[in-house]
Amino acid sequence: MSRTTDLVAVFTTVSTRQQADLLARATVEQRLAACVQIEAIHSTYRWQGEIVNEPEVRLMLKTTQANYAALEVLLRQRHPYEVPAIFALPIAEASAPYAGWVTAVLAQNAGHS
Amino acid sequence: MSRTTDLVAVFTTVSTRQQADLLARATVEQRLAACVQIEAIHSTYRWQGEIVNEPEVRLMLKTTQANYAALEVLLRQRHPYEVPAIFALPIAEASAPYAGWVTAVLAQNAGHS
Amino acid sequence: MSRTTDLVAVFTTVSTRQQADLLARATVEQRLAACVQIEAIHSTYRWQGEIVNEPEVRLMLKTTQANYAALEVLLRQRHPYEVPAIFALPIAEASAPYAGWVTAVLAQNAGHS
Repeated sequence: MSRTTDLVAVFTTVSTRQQADLLARATVEQRLAACVQIEAIHSTYRWQGEIVNEPEVRLMLKTTQANYAALEVLLRQRHPYEVPAIFALPIAEASAPYAGWVTAVLAQNAGHS
Repeated sequence: MSRTTDLVAVFTTVSTRQQADLLARATVEQRLAACVQIEAIHSTYRWQGEIVNEPEVRLMLKTTQANYAALEVLLRQRHPYEVPAIFALPIAEASAPYAGWVTAVLAQNAGHS
Repeated sequence: MSRTTDLVAVFTTVSTRQQADLLARATVEQRLAACVQIEAIHSTYRWQGEIVNEPEVRLMLKTTQANYAALEVLLRQRHPYEVPAIFALPIAEASAPYAGWVTAVLAQNAGHS
């Protein structure tokens, strides 16, 4: 499938709803994400030899490929974790009015001024 | 990674559980989605100059690349929002029996009759 | 967009939180997933001619492309469903320390010994 948009869906995970809201607001304020969705999850992973299971909050941030690097920098600066999970899934197709809205929102950020 | 399937995961977001259930049922009834998952989220985005945060419901619809355009048309017709977020993530790999089930379910829709 | 990582995000769905926790623990124990996130959802799909809607639990497992086939085998062996949804979304970009952590965790699994 050839991609018809340059949008990406970026995921990261924090410990609390408050941390998630702070990251969501910061990335939208700086126009590095057009919108951010957060949801409660439970995570299982290996930590110092033990398998742990704990509640977390996941963010899904919508941005463009061109803004991913700057968004990752901001997330790492503000993130409560030392090695946060931050990764982007490519978006293959998007409704044209929605893709236009995302692009227009992000076009006004500092990288474009 | 070369893709071994033509499945896609389509996302859209509405305000209420009832709206989500209506869209889920309509897309499955018309065989434009083989299955739909919904979940409660909170969204942060810019609206008329303000940053807003509100509860929403996200849908993840499983379909094929060939059915994406018709699914997007149906979602836009039935969607409560003026500019809904509708976009598709490519699926790179899928369990063969599952991919076969999705394809078989969708093969009976109107586009194939 | 050219991919800068070989990570993938794998999704599957089960009926209960307990089933989800068992799959999460098994895949992390065998180092076929570096971390697993689970969340409550509602699913709509066609079953024996009827459209059904039921609560389920979704898993999102982070692994590498090289480990996908072995992970799918393990998921199918342990899965409570006859034809489970199991599929992988490609990850286009990832924070370098995170990608390094995933790769390091998985490098110690049986396939590498």
